[in-house]
Amino acid sequence: MNLDIYKNLHRANRELINLNPIQRGGILPTEAKKAIYEFWDGYSVCDFCSGKLDEIQNPPICKFKEDLAEFINMDFVRFTHGAREGKFIVMHSICEENDYIVLDKNAHYTSYVAAERAKLNVVEVGYEEEYPTYKINLEGYKEVLDNLEDENKNVGLVLLTHVDGNFGNLNDAKKVGKIAKKKGVPFLLNCAYTVGRMPVDGKEVKADFIVASGHKSMAASGPIGILGFSEEFEDKIAKRSEKFPIKEIEFLGCTSRGLPLITLMASFPYVVERVKRWDEELKKTRYLVEELEKLGFKQLGIKPKEHDLVKFETPILDEISKKDKRKGYFFYEELKKRGIVGIKPGVTKEVKMSVYGLEWEQVKYVVESIKEIILQSHHTL
Amino acid sequence: MNLDIYKNLHRANRELINLNPIQRGGILPTEAKKAIYEFWDGYSVCDFCSGKLDEIQNPPICKFKEDLAEFINMDFVRFTHGAREGKFIVMHSICEENDYIVLDKNAHYTSYVAAERAKLNVVEVGYEEEYPTYKINLEGYKEVLDNLEDENKNVGLVLLTHVDGNFGNLNDAKKVGKIAKKKGVPFLLNCAYTVGRMPVDGKEVKADFIVASGHKSMAASGPIGILGFSEEFEDKIAKRSEKFPIKEIEFLGCTSRGLPLITLMASFPYVVERVKRWDEELKKTRYLVEELEKLGFKQLGIKPKEHDLVKFETPILDEISKKDKRKGYFFYEELKKRGIVGIKPGVTKEVKMSVYGLEWEQVKYVVESIKEIILQSHHTL
Repeated sequence: MNLDIYKNLHRANRELINLNPIQRGGILPTEAKKAIYEFWDGYSVCDFCSGKLDEIQNPPICKFKEDLAEFINMDFVRFTHGAREGKFIVMHSICEENDYIVLDKNAHYTSYVAAERAKLNVVEVGYEEEYPTYKINLEGYKEVLDNLEDENKNVGLVLLTHVDGNFGNLNDAKKVGKIAKKKGVPFLLNCAYTVGRMPVDGKEVKADFIVASGHKSMAASGPIGILGFSEEFEDKIAKRSEKFPIKEIEFLGCTSRGLPLITLMASFPYVVERVKRWDEELKKTRYLVEELEKLGFKQLGIKPKEHDLVKFETPILDEISKKDKRKGYFFYEELKKRGIVGIKPGVTKEVKMSVYGLEWEQVKYVVESIKEIILQSHHTL
Repeated sequence: MNLDIYKNLHRANRELINLNPIQRGGILPTEAKKAIYEFWDGYSVCDFCSGKLDEIQNPPICKFKEDLAEFINMDFVRFTHGAREGKFIVMHSICEENDYIVLDKNAHYTSYVAAERAKLNVVEVGYEEEYPTYKINLEGYKEVLDNLEDENKNVGLVLLTHVDGNFGNLNDAKKVGKIAKKKGVPFLLNCAYTVGRMPVDGKEVKADFIVASGHKSMAASGPIGILGFSEEFEDKIAKRSEKFPIKEIEFLGCTSRGLPLITLMASFPYVVERVKRWDEELKKTRYLVEELEKLGFKQLGIKPKEHDLVKFETPILDEISKKDKRKGYFFYEELKKRGIVGIKPGVTKEVKMSVYGLEWEQVKYVVESIKEIILQSHHTL
């Protein structure tokens, strides 16, 4: 066993501009880094625990739970290990085995895997338009639910991905919320890419459940997430153990006992503030799209962008890669030379990126860098 | 919403000697703190992921999984959010609803709650002796299994708590492993208090599954744990999603995507070394017991101690508390004055503590401090 490989673990990309959409919302502010220094030891969150982690007063976890509920406008909040774990908790506690759940075709893979783990059937709601927008047919939820009703299937849950991780399309959650409400089916909104980046109001969209991700969009170290739920489902989600009445079964007593929760809490004031500047973030994203489309990129997904995650078709990169001796890796390598990472190495037909949270100066630097790489390559070839 | 309470989150106890047994095994070595600085941002572990977290090469997560398997001598290892989550994964993937699981009466509450969540029935194996040792009747597993067989109950799992969190009793796991093997029932050993503190050999004790806790006993920030399992159960534990064949269902694709995993990895060389010094740790514990029993404490649990977690009956503290104006809090407060924390405030009849990982100098300081507090109180009263 060569233990030396675990010494001096180093993150080469640490100081670079990272365009990977799963990274941009999880960058820690200074305040959270300071808190890490205080609480990095194993069970250090639990110094003053009297039996239930989310009721600890010092650090103020108990109050934080309430403030988070207010932040997303839901009745209650619990901590989870992430959005996927929140989805499983909802499915496992409110559905019966073999129930059907209805979800959008852009749903994250973890929505399917959570359903598989909970032994549920999945029916997809498809697109209103496929290429190039891949816009979900939100009215289609009604039809799918009607059909399942006609077939006497028991539908346990309606799930909508607020913003998907592939095209970055923002869905009008209220539309689906209303349909679900009318049908009397509980409604879960997956906000892994929204809560912590942009304003989300659970009651406004008629969500019974909201899951969010700390490491993806709430400036926290992973793994941490939150599950918001309405009072109506409190008895199921927060059901207590028979033998240990203080402990909630679906959370195995306490979920996140450690550091990620501390970072979520320490970042909260910062997150509350940044959400208010969402319009400015959209401006940056739209500027990026406008500039890159001039270079021959084509934005997929709904236009204009209503979220920072952008997917581009990039025939120009594909063309260059056929003539560059580095093949598809030229783009990754040229970006890296300029201190930019997060674009999948070797991929040339489509790229995903986000400039969320970058300063305007940096957004412009990214645009100029890509421009330079493409023009230079064209010139050389 | 008063966001100021989340600013400058501070851990008052950070620099003090902490005797709480759940804290002592989770204190980070410098190497892990350095790694935190590199990887604290949200999804930073995943810079070089090609679809499956535990196959990432940089940082060397993939190799780490193999080294951990060798360390506990099991065929495979997966990362979990902690021991409890590992137990649920085993129960949920190998048992059928309403199956019976047989566990020891000293089992951690999370063993019961995991079973409740997996909708299983629990039957306890009781004590060979109650007060004062609370020693589990390991041969009793045979009888309990025989009875369930006679009643035509389906037993899905045998669970043993290697060292329990109440008395710190070490159980001879091999005895139970043999019984389970003979009966053809899978055997799970809960090593939350052992793996990372003392040597554990999964095959030697005939365990089919081993769960361990990073934050409790492997010098890692929470929440992180490991699940070791034998080849025989690979198809169930590591079952892949139908729609997303790279993703393992029970782990919802990836479990621990973040910082705690990095600390577990960075602490590994340190943990491998410290486990070799387990005899020295036992010496410290036995010295503590010997000295405190001279003061009127009485060690509960098996004698001599074979683990660092010690529970004492403390009639002497109870006696003093009746006369001290601070009531039961005098002990907590007097210790704190001397820079020692981790003893439950207000409790006087029984106290739990551990000196695991303290320097001999510190162990002696703890003993001398307690001696001083008791003699002083006696003198004053």
